Formats: sequence, C-alpha cells, structure tokens
Amino acid sequence: MIIETSSGLESALTQVEEMLRDLTSTDVPLLKQACTHIVSAGGKRLRPRVVFLAYEAAGGDDLSRVTPLAAAVELIHTASLVHDDINDHSEMRRGRATINARWGDTLALLTGDFIFLKVLDIVAGFDADVIRVLGEACIALVEGETLQTATQSEGQLTEEEYLEVVGRKTASLFSACAELGAIVAGGSPEVRTALRDYGYDFGVAFQLRDDVLDLVGSSWRLGKPVVQDLDQEKMSLAMLHALSESEEAHEILMSKDRDSVLDLLESTGALDYANRRTREYSKAAKEQLAVLVPSAARDALGALTEFAEDREE
Amino acid sequence: MIIETSSGLESALTQVEEMLRDLTSTDVPLLKQACTHIVSAGGKRLRPRVVFLAYEAAGGDDLSRVTPLAAAVELIHTASLVHDDINDHSEMRRGRATINARWGDTLALLTGDFIFLKVLDIVAGFDADVIRVLGEACIALVEGETLQTATQSEGQLTEEEYLEVVGRKTASLFSACAELGAIVAGGSPEVRTALRDYGYDFGVAFQLRDDVLDLVGSSWRLGKPVVQDLDQEKMSLAMLHALSESEEAHEILMSKDRDSVLDLLESTGALDYANRRTREYSKAAKEQLAVLVPSAARDALGALTEFAEDREE
Repeated sequence: MIIETSSGLESALTQVEEMLRDLTSTDVPLLKQACTHIVSAGGKRLRPRVVFLAYEAAGGDDLSRVTPLAAAVELIHTASLVHDDINDHSEMRRGRATINARWGDTLALLTGDFIFLKVLDIVAGFDADVIRVLGEACIALVEGETLQTATQSEGQLTEEEYLEVVGRKTASLFSACAELGAIVAGGSPEVRTALRDYGYDFGVAFQLRDDVLDLVGSSWRLGKPVVQDLDQEKMSLAMLHALSESEEAHEILMSKDRDSVLDLLESTGALDYANRRTREYSKAAKEQLAVLVPSAARDALGALTEFAEDREE
Repeated sequence: MIIETSSGLESALTQVEEMLRDLTSTDVPLLKQACTHIVSAGGKRLRPRVVFLAYEAAGGDDLSRVTPLAAAVELIHTASLVHDDINDHSEMRRGRATINARWGDTLALLTGDFIFLKVLDIVAGFDADVIRVLGEACIALVEGETLQTATQSEGQLTEEEYLEVVGRKTASLFSACAELGAIVAGGSPEVRTALRDYGYDFGVAFQLRDDVLDLVGSSWRLGKPVVQDLDQEKMSLAMLHALSESEEAHEILMSKDRDSVLDLLESTGALDYANRRTREYSKAAKEQLAVLVPSAARDALGALTEFAEDREE
C-alpha cells in the first residue's frame, strides 16, 4: 500500500528533510558523517506526517508552523534507533551498516546524544505546553525501552506488560505527534484528546504490525532467525500467544527452524491473534477521528491506520 | 579550599537537589535505581552555583527564577558523565560503582538518555533565547567529546586542538551557565558577554586543573596508572608539553611507573607549564567580572576562579 500525499504535505515533508540535513552542519567530521549516514538513509517519515496531518485535521492552515516539530519528532525517533542499534548489537538499518557497526559503539552513542540534543534548539520558541508534550513522549520512550530490557531478563511477559512496553516505546511518540499538531492548530480540548488517542492507538497498531513483520516478513528474506535467544530477543504478541497455547512453543521458538516456527504460529492461531489485535487498535484509532470536522487531512489520517495494519514493510 | 556559600544560595542549591531527586520519580524501577544512584552520589554542583551567582551578579534578586535552569545544567552534566563512563569503561564515579559497572552498558545508555531528555520538560516555558543557549552548549559538549575520541585515535594533538576539545566539552557548558544567569536577570548585552566569557575561561581553567589532578592527584592515591595507553587515554596539557620537550616522554608515559612519570613532568617543566596556563585562564575569567557592579555574588564568582586553579580534588 502506498501512502497518499497531497502537494502541500509533500512540500512540508521536503522542508523536514532540509531541517534534518541542517542537523549535519557540525564542523566535527565524524559526527557529520554519522548523522548524514543515518539521515540520508531515509525512512517512512511517518511521525512528521502524523504531525502535519493532525495539524491540518485540527484546522491548521500553515504547515510551516509545525515543520520544526515534525523535524523534532523524527530526530527523536532517529536518535532512539541509533541507540537501540548499540543495545541490540544490530548491524543493518535501512539497508545500511548501523553507525555502531561502521564506526563503533562510542561514536554511535555520541551521535545519538547529538541528535537528541539538537531537539532543544529546534523547540526553542514553542509554548511550554508543546515542549512538555514532547518531553513527556521522550521520557515514555526511554521508559519503554528500559521496561523492555528489564522484562527480557525476567522471563515471560504477560500480554498486558507487553502492551505497556509497546505503548511507551512506540505509541507515546505517535500520540505526541498528533497532539502537537492539535495544539499548534489551536484545536479544542476535545479535538486535542481525540488526536492524542488516535496517535496512541495508531502507534500500538503500527508496532504490533512491525512485530508480525519481524516474524513473517522481510527479516526471513534476509535469512535472519526468528529468535536468536528467547531471553534476549524482543517478545511479540504472536510469540506470547503461541507460548500460552502450546507447551512445545518455547522449544520450537528456540529451534530457529523457520518451518517449525511458522507451523507453530499457524497451529496455535498466534498470527491470527496478533493480526486481530492489530486491527482492533487500528480501528480504535480511526474511530477517534469521528469528532473531527471532515477534511482531506482527516481522511488521510484514516488511511494511515489502514497502512499501519496492512503494510508489508 | 572551601567554596563559600551565602544562605540564599544554600537554600537555592537545596531546591536544585530536590529537582534532581524529582527526576527519579519514574515508575520504572531500574531507571529509578540508576538515577538515584548517580544523583544521590552528590558532586560539587558547580554548574548550578555558577548559574545562581551569575544571575545575582547580573542584578537578579529572585533565585527561584533560575532554579530550573540550575537543575537543567546539572542534569546535562550528569547525563554526560553517565555516557562518558560507558565510553571509557570506567568503574568508579564519585566513590561509587558506575552505572555501567553495576547494571551494564545498556541501562547506563538508557539512563543517560533519560536524564538528558528530562531537560526538555524542565526548560519548557523559558524564552527561546534561554533554550537556544542551553541547546548550543549541549551540542558543543557532544562535539567536544567526539573530537576527543577522534583525536585520540589520530595520534598526538597540538595544544591548540587540545584547548579546542576542552573548550567544547567543558567550557561551553560553564559559559552557558553564566550566560543563562545573565539572560534571566535581564543583564545588558555587555554584562551577558562578560559573564559568558567568564564562564568559558573558568571552564577551561577548571578542566586544566582537573587534568593536572588526574596526573598528580587522588587517582594516584587510588593506585590507578597515569596512562593506560597513550592512544586511548585522554591527553592533557602537561603530557603534551612533556612530549614536546623530551624524546623519551612517550616511552616514560607508557611505562606507567609513577616515579619516572613524575620525574618527567618535573624535569620538562610540564606541570609548571600546565599550572601556568591554568592560572592564565582563571585570571582571564576574573578580569571579565570588572564590568559588573560590585556585589557579593561578583566576589563569589571571583573566588570560584581561585577554587578552579587551586583545588585539590
């Protein structure tokens, strides 16, 4: 599925790319190289897109007013990926070597810090309300990552704990994206709440789909095992479901044998279950939009929820 | 030497400690423990002190107006220490195990991120000018750390390059501390510039003294070698001077033999040289204060420059 983009949105997204590139205007060659490496690798820029669409859907008519915030949320996302890759010892990201793989952990750590801290400069001049919403989303993100790390070492998660991790590490930033758009557009408290909740449910759906793709999607094509080690790998709803439905699930997931794992996920209904839960969140996100005045932007936010549940990459 | 503190400043510094403790109010147990571990270990709180004194010296009369900024600069400093300790594989900090030594690199990385990102929440509501000054100091700090890492692997630094590293990684944040005080107090452009320059020169003097203490101070008492590996250790002005004065310096510094190293630093005049340069910066800092109206706060800033050059720890 292709994400549709209006010409106004397209132009605003181009501005975001320019702001992201400006980030690399440091005179420290290594930082410049590493920032360029991750920023120019692209990405879906979904978070900036949500900021812009929420702003328009809440009545805003000058996208340039939220461009710095759209850039800020993408920087936060990017910095967190750079640091995640250190923690996960990941070697590939967006089709390129990760910064840690190419330049080592120290430079990756400093590059992530650099990108996070650039956000301060970008948000200067915005209202306290805006900066607080962004700050709280950042805190939730780090809390989510920490919870995930902590629960990995404590054995099997409950589904509720898993959804709490997803909520903080992924949904909170999407929620902030949509809320920021509403705030700057001067949306009513009702609109602001609806968009915040839209972003949260959208974010959960997006992450649940991400997890399913990790199991059945392109990572298989890259020849990676589903599960390196159950204690270290990130858990997912489908895996939790399989573990609760079959006593042999643990052994099969550890076996790293593709066919056995897919059989297990099939026979326990684990993929169906994860897909069903994904659709529930995606539907809940779409329903939040009912309080908004009909508009092309509102429709585009609705279409994004379909993208979240259907996407193949 | 003891740093003198007025009762008003004492009370403001207590408020800062409370704000730092509030930081640990996360419901994620591991983050809470790690934050408490580093924050409760204390420290000189020099950066908050400079914010408060600069604010008063620039005519401010309500310290509570800059308390959040005083907390923010201490958070930035603390987060950078947490991340430095990962990069340096340090095991001890402020008399305690480092977060990386106690809980591992992943939690230390996340804790540093958490502390950095708490700054966003704290600065919400301050003028764009204030947030920009803080943001630029953060960027300089990370650039300085990166330059240091980069130059370590490229062999011997020039003195100029070394002072550039010190300027960015240490002096820029002290410079921002003093400038922030001036801005919030509504100081004139002249006062703002003088305090910014005071902070910078003070910061260089402070770091140069730190480097000398690493060579002759308590690290010896802790039984650590001066130099683990010239390619990996942080360079210092005294070591650069010794290297430029003696062909045998490299070998002696690598020998890790305390007496030989001290003999070398003595015979090449390296410590004298580093101490002289430290006093130059400390004196330059003090001279910046001449444009300020005489006050107890101005005197206290002057006394701090003496602390910077004389301190034994």
